[in-house]
Amino acid sequence: MSNKLLLLTQSNEKYIELLTKQNLPELEIVDDTPEHIARTNIWLADPPLAAPLLGIGKNLKWLQATYAGVDKIVSVKQRSDYLLTNVRDIFGPMMSEYVFSYLISHLRHHNSYFNSQKEQVWQSCADQQLRNKTMLILGTGSIGQHLAQTAKLFGMKVIGVSRSGDKKANFDECTHIYQLDEQLPYADVVVSVLPSSPQTDDIFNSARFSKMKENVIFFNVGRGNAVDLYDLNVALIERPNMLAVLDVFKTEPLPKQDEIWQRDNVVITPHIAAPSTPEQVVDIFAENYRRWLKGVDLQYQVDFKLGY
Amino acid sequence: MSNKLLLLTQSNEKYIELLTKQNLPELEIVDDTPEHIARTNIWLADPPLAAPLLGIGKNLKWLQATYAGVDKIVSVKQRSDYLLTNVRDIFGPMMSEYVFSYLISHLRHHNSYFNSQKEQVWQSCADQQLRNKTMLILGTGSIGQHLAQTAKLFGMKVIGVSRSGDKKANFDECTHIYQLDEQLPYADVVVSVLPSSPQTDDIFNSARFSKMKENVIFFNVGRGNAVDLYDLNVALIERPNMLAVLDVFKTEPLPKQDEIWQRDNVVITPHIAAPSTPEQVVDIFAENYRRWLKGVDLQYQVDFKLGY
Repeated sequence: MSNKLLLLTQSNEKYIELLTKQNLPELEIVDDTPEHIARTNIWLADPPLAAPLLGIGKNLKWLQATYAGVDKIVSVKQRSDYLLTNVRDIFGPMMSEYVFSYLISHLRHHNSYFNSQKEQVWQSCADQQLRNKTMLILGTGSIGQHLAQTAKLFGMKVIGVSRSGDKKANFDECTHIYQLDEQLPYADVVVSVLPSSPQTDDIFNSARFSKMKENVIFFNVGRGNAVDLYDLNVALIERPNMLAVLDVFKTEPLPKQDEIWQRDNVVITPHIAAPSTPEQVVDIFAENYRRWLKGVDLQYQVDFKLGY
Repeated sequence: MSNKLLLLTQSNEKYIELLTKQNLPELEIVDDTPEHIARTNIWLADPPLAAPLLGIGKNLKWLQATYAGVDKIVSVKQRSDYLLTNVRDIFGPMMSEYVFSYLISHLRHHNSYFNSQKEQVWQSCADQQLRNKTMLILGTGSIGQHLAQTAKLFGMKVIGVSRSGDKKANFDECTHIYQLDEQLPYADVVVSVLPSSPQTDDIFNSARFSKMKENVIFFNVGRGNAVDLYDLNVALIERPNMLAVLDVFKTEPLPKQDEIWQRDNVVITPHIAAPSTPEQVVDIFAENYRRWLKGVDLQYQVDFKLGY
C-alpha cells in the first residue's frame, strides 16, 4: 500500500466500517502507535485529537479534519507545512434548522402554549412573525447563505457582514465587517457564524451589545471566541427583553460556575447546532482521496493564514 | 355614497382605522343595526359573525371574509346567491413557521436541552435532522406549496396529496387523495392543510392512523373536521413514539374534558398557526373593492360547491 491513513476520531470503529465500504485503492488504515504517527502520510482527524500529535507526525502530508472548526490546529504555534482540508457545505440546512427553530419558538411563545396546554387552557399569545423583521448574519459563506435563503422564505430582510463585504447569494445587502456598528441598531436578529481567528476574538463585547435593540435575539453558532461571555452576561441582566442563543463557547463544556447559566434569557446548547456525521465526512474524504491519487487539487483546503 | 360597508369583526375599531387610511372612494362604513344589515351591499366579516345574519341581509351582494376558513357560511343550509371572497396567499410563511418550528423542536430535543440547561449539564442528544425525511402534505394550494418549498430547503422529500392529483410547484410528487393510503406508510411527517368540506370529514381516522409509521409526526393545521379526535387519542395511547401537533379542532375552544389534553405525545395550540392580521385583510379588501368599482373579477372567490 502506498498510502497509510491514521484515524484520530472519537468514533474510529464507525469510520473504519464506512471507509471499508468505500473500497478506496492503495490505502492502509493504521492505529495510533507512536511509530505509525511518525510514519503516516494521511490523517483523518478530529482537530483537538490531532493537535498534540502534530509535532511527532514527521511524515504528515495531508490532514482531513472531521469538522469545520480547525482553530486548534492552525494556531500560530503550530506547523503549517502540510495540506489541511476541512468539511464544508453540509452544515447549512442543519444550522438553519437550529437557528429558525429556536427563533420561531421564542417569537411564537412555544413555552407559553406548552404551559397553557398542561392546564388545559385555550389562550392565545401576541405572537410575532418573521415577516419584515431584519436578520444580520456575520459570515456569508455557505452556512450564512443557507440561513439567508431560509430567512427570505419567511419574508425577512437579510443583511450579510463579512471581511470582504462582497454581495453574496440570498442576501438583500452585504457590508464590510468594519461597518458592523452601523448595522447593529437595525437588526431584530443577529447571527454569528464567524470562524475562529484573531480578528474575530471578542467581536461581540459590551460596546457591540449596547448598540443592539433592547429585544434583539442574538445567536452564536460559529465559534466561541467571537463572544465576550462576561460582557454578554452583563448585557442579559441589563436587557431582560434580549435573548441570547449560544451553541459554542471559548471553553467547552461551558464550566458549571459560569454565571451565564443563571440567566433566564439565554438558551445554552452543547455545541450541537450542526454536527458533521461520519457518513458525510467519509464522503468528503473519499472524494478528496481520489483527487489525491490523481494529483488533482483537494476540496475545502484551509488557508493557514486566514484560519479557515 | 353608492356603496355601504358592514363591518362584522372582532376588531372593528382597528378595521375602521385601517380602512380610513386606504381612502376608498364612494364607500360608507355603517354599523350593525338591523336596518343596516338589511340594506348593506358589501360586508367585511369574520365568518362566524356573518353566519347568523345572512338570512336578514337582503341586499348583500359581496362578502369579503377576514380569514380563509369559510365553512360556517357555505354550509348547505345557507344561501349562495352572493359573491364570497376570502383571504389567501398570506398564510404560507406563517404556516411554515408553525410546522417547522414544532417539527424541529421535537426532532432536535429542545425540551431535553432546556432541562439540561436548568441543571447546568452539558449533554448532547441523538438529534435527528430533516434531511432525507419524507413529508406528506394534504392540500397543494399556496399554503401547501410554501410548506413544500421550506421542506425542500431542509433537504426533505415532499409528496403532495390533493383532489386533483395535479403536480404543483415545489413538490417532488403529487398524487390523488384516493391514493392516500398507499403514501401514508412512507411518510415521516404528515401535514394536513385541507379545507373543511364533507369530503374531508374524519379523513384521519383509526384506519389511517394505523397505516402511519410508529414514530410519525402528524400535523393538523387545516380545519378540525379532518380528524376523528377519538381515534387520534386511541392512536396516541397505542403509539407512544408518535407525535400529533394540533392547531384546529371540530369544537373550539377544545373542551376541557376532552381526553386528548392528557396525552404526553400531543401539542395543542389554540388555532394560532396562521392568523390573518387586519392589515393583511384590509389590503386584500381594498384591492378587491377597487376591482368591484371597475366591474373587474374579484380575487380569491370561493366556490360554494367546493367550499373553498
